[in-house]
Amino acid sequence: MESQSKTASVRRKRPGAEASRSTILKASLAEFAEQSLAGARMDAIAAAAGVNKALLYYYFRSKEALYEAVLEEFFQHLRERISTALDSDASAGERILLYARVHFDTVAESRYYARLFQSEMMSAAREDSPRFSHIVDQYLKPIALRVMALLRAGAESGEFRRVDPAQFMPTMVSSIVWYFVVSPVLRRLRPGDPYSEEAILQRRAAVLDFIAAALFVDRDAGLKLAARIANEIPETYFSSETSALPGEDVRGRRK
Amino acid sequence: MESQSKTASVRRKRPGAEASRSTILKASLAEFAEQSLAGARMDAIAAAAGVNKALLYYYFRSKEALYEAVLEEFFQHLRERISTALDSDASAGERILLYARVHFDTVAESRYYARLFQSEMMSAAREDSPRFSHIVDQYLKPIALRVMALLRAGAESGEFRRVDPAQFMPTMVSSIVWYFVVSPVLRRLRPGDPYSEEAILQRRAAVLDFIAAALFVDRDAGLKLAARIANEIPETYFSSETSALPGEDVRGRRK
Repeated sequence: MESQSKTASVRRKRPGAEASRSTILKASLAEFAEQSLAGARMDAIAAAAGVNKALLYYYFRSKEALYEAVLEEFFQHLRERISTALDSDASAGERILLYARVHFDTVAESRYYARLFQSEMMSAAREDSPRFSHIVDQYLKPIALRVMALLRAGAESGEFRRVDPAQFMPTMVSSIVWYFVVSPVLRRLRPGDPYSEEAILQRRAAVLDFIAAALFVDRDAGLKLAARIANEIPETYFSSETSALPGEDVRGRRK
Repeated sequence: MESQSKTASVRRKRPGAEASRSTILKASLAEFAEQSLAGARMDAIAAAAGVNKALLYYYFRSKEALYEAVLEEFFQHLRERISTALDSDASAGERILLYARVHFDTVAESRYYARLFQSEMMSAAREDSPRFSHIVDQYLKPIALRVMALLRAGAESGEFRRVDPAQFMPTMVSSIVWYFVVSPVLRRLRPGDPYSEEAILQRRAAVLDFIAAALFVDRDAGLKLAARIANEIPETYFSSETSALPGEDVRGRRK
């Protein structure tokens, strides 16, 4: 087809192209999380992103393709941040708690992440979903396998109790993620926004405390380590190319 | 209106009325869990229950009313079973683990319960929902308050660590419920049905082990208690009027 418009090829090259793509993905995340794939409207996304619908279809050829791009962006980001934590050369105990913190922090970044995942999982429960199987194979399974191997290594070195990794891993994930999943309940149970900075920091400390209390052979040592990793490790410890927000002031790299 | 039909009043009195109502609720649970309130079809429910649509509307005047009845039935059942566990005169440690077991067992009874709740919670996240607020006020909040009071009592008696009940309670619930919520992931991660009896018993033991390991000051004593409550307490310990299935053979009451 020769019909690619001049406008489109100009858009592809202009400096704001990445910014537009990122703005569209952000607006799409909100719409898909709130309305699910079936209910989401491209008009609403275009309006929220402040772009025209033609541009939306130019970057992402269909609503399904846009939805997949939103899912992929989240899971790539999650996988990269978790890898950073797991790849450190700290002890098994430190690495498992760093993993928990970074998983928690990543899901906490947007109030739409937990809902997007739930919505996707529920549609996958209803029908065979190659898209969801791809997410499991590409992201969830590799992460789960690494975390389970770490639980095994920590038990062998005598740092962790001998738990069944196939059970402990999902329990750990539940303690990390559940808070966000049930935020509609929490909002009705007690005052305040579950996503406020104060609430998030309290929850993060509680999650790491819980995991350490259940896992470490030397519980007191584990609890101290958990408190340190929850409260004292700076955010920048985990930052990577993808986790830096556009325009973020990275200390030492800008005046 | 005098138009109440003779058929309807006959139906109300016939002995099978309760059985029909129960069959309809069971079929509705599956349909609402799979399709959510918006997608569920009264035709499909009538067909699955083997009744005609007029009877459906006779018992439950609308799809919304039927949906509410399904939710209420689950939460009443859950609240009653949990009360039985919390009302026992055992120690705080025994009661918290009995609570965990009975909450787990109740959600495990049907593969549709976790999905029904998730679907309801997600629609409540999208919009103001008096129905969901009613569920929180009537069921979730009273249960949460009792569990938190028990966590406090156990800490005061020196049996539990001094955890923040407002954090530990949802974490405990997450470890109990998460397995069912993520069963679409588990089905893709490993072979076997997450709802098989073997898988359920393994998971139950792991959940009680996890809670005890994180909570008891004397961890070894807690772990032993958890193993006993997970594996040795008979199902009948928890049975009540409402949890007995129709036609169930209750020992000693039938030949």
